[in-house]
Amino acid sequence: MLKKHSLQEIIDFISYIDQLKNVIRKNGLHDGSREENTAEHSWHAALSALLLAPYADQKLDIDKVIKMLLIHDLVEIEAGDTFVYDRKEVAKQGLSEAEAADIILNKLPEQQGEMLQNLWDEFEARETPEAKFAKAIDRFLPLYSNIINRGYSWLPYGVTQTHVREINSIIKDGSTGLWELIEEMLDEAVLEGYINP
Amino acid sequence: MLKKHSLQEIIDFISYIDQLKNVIRKNGLHDGSREENTAEHSWHAALSALLLAPYADQKLDIDKVIKMLLIHDLVEIEAGDTFVYDRKEVAKQGLSEAEAADIILNKLPEQQGEMLQNLWDEFEARETPEAKFAKAIDRFLPLYSNIINRGYSWLPYGVTQTHVREINSIIKDGSTGLWELIEEMLDEAVLEGYINP
Repeated sequence: MLKKHSLQEIIDFISYIDQLKNVIRKNGLHDGSREENTAEHSWHAALSALLLAPYADQKLDIDKVIKMLLIHDLVEIEAGDTFVYDRKEVAKQGLSEAEAADIILNKLPEQQGEMLQNLWDEFEARETPEAKFAKAIDRFLPLYSNIINRGYSWLPYGVTQTHVREINSIIKDGSTGLWELIEEMLDEAVLEGYINP
Repeated sequence: MLKKHSLQEIIDFISYIDQLKNVIRKNGLHDGSREENTAEHSWHAALSALLLAPYADQKLDIDKVIKMLLIHDLVEIEAGDTFVYDRKEVAKQGLSEAEAADIILNKLPEQQGEMLQNLWDEFEARETPEAKFAKAIDRFLPLYSNIINRGYSWLPYGVTQTHVREINSIIKDGSTGLWELIEEMLDEAVLEGYINP
């Protein structure tokens, strides 16, 4: 029997993470109407992973991938979103996200805090098949939305296709099939003018 | 080896479901700043289920609960969101959501379409421990946000505590512990004036 105060701690945490709905990313919705927030991105990533599971290169536990994607960006409640094409922001990212994870997960009862910490550590280390695939999905989505919404977060920031390929080539550590499709999409995006060559 | 056109169908579906980010619910964020959309609600529900799993009354497969919650509201892309306290809307809900599920899931390759259809059917039937717990979480969240944001979607629509208890008592089919906490919260909400008695 779990103690009642553990239930209250979890309930408080569920209210606390509601803030992720107010963390705004540079990335736009597919219809280009607005920037997306990190909560809806996390939903999109978890469900996309479930659908794309047959295209993972290695045998994996898709349920763990889904859980990783549900929690992978919780740190942004304290650390904010880092635009992946801003080299300065990315360089300082490691420390502040680890600190954020510490602050956030300490709000939970030990059992739940440890579970989330383990998922987050595994995702960040990018060593297991699950982490590699989760990261592939996480990187695929904003790239794909820029194809559909015609460079919504590429053109205003002068992002180049060279930089996109460099940053996102880790997708092929999780799914070579997905990466091949992306390479075709990027060729097309350059031709269409959604991204700088 | 899966055919390439299946990958393309899944990718197209991932873009199609981006529209769930534009389905707006009556329910408000915990800070009361705006109404929430169904995509971010689905994320919140899936992660809340993972955290509250120890409070489910029956032994269950939490991974299946999470998957149900990721997809349970996809039908709203075609059917729109139904406010649970509007009796007329609720009465006509069954047919239009089943039709919407048909339209939506036919966009997927057979393997993924069947998987999602099975999850949705099981969720809607509310017979298995997984479906009962998933529904409990789905009902808990908007109720809880109204406690935190002081009746954001209760007061403007004249919702009464009697109606809230009637509509949401199915929560106790999934978690009696959660329902007990909610009953305390509702007593408090009446005293504080967040809901009509």
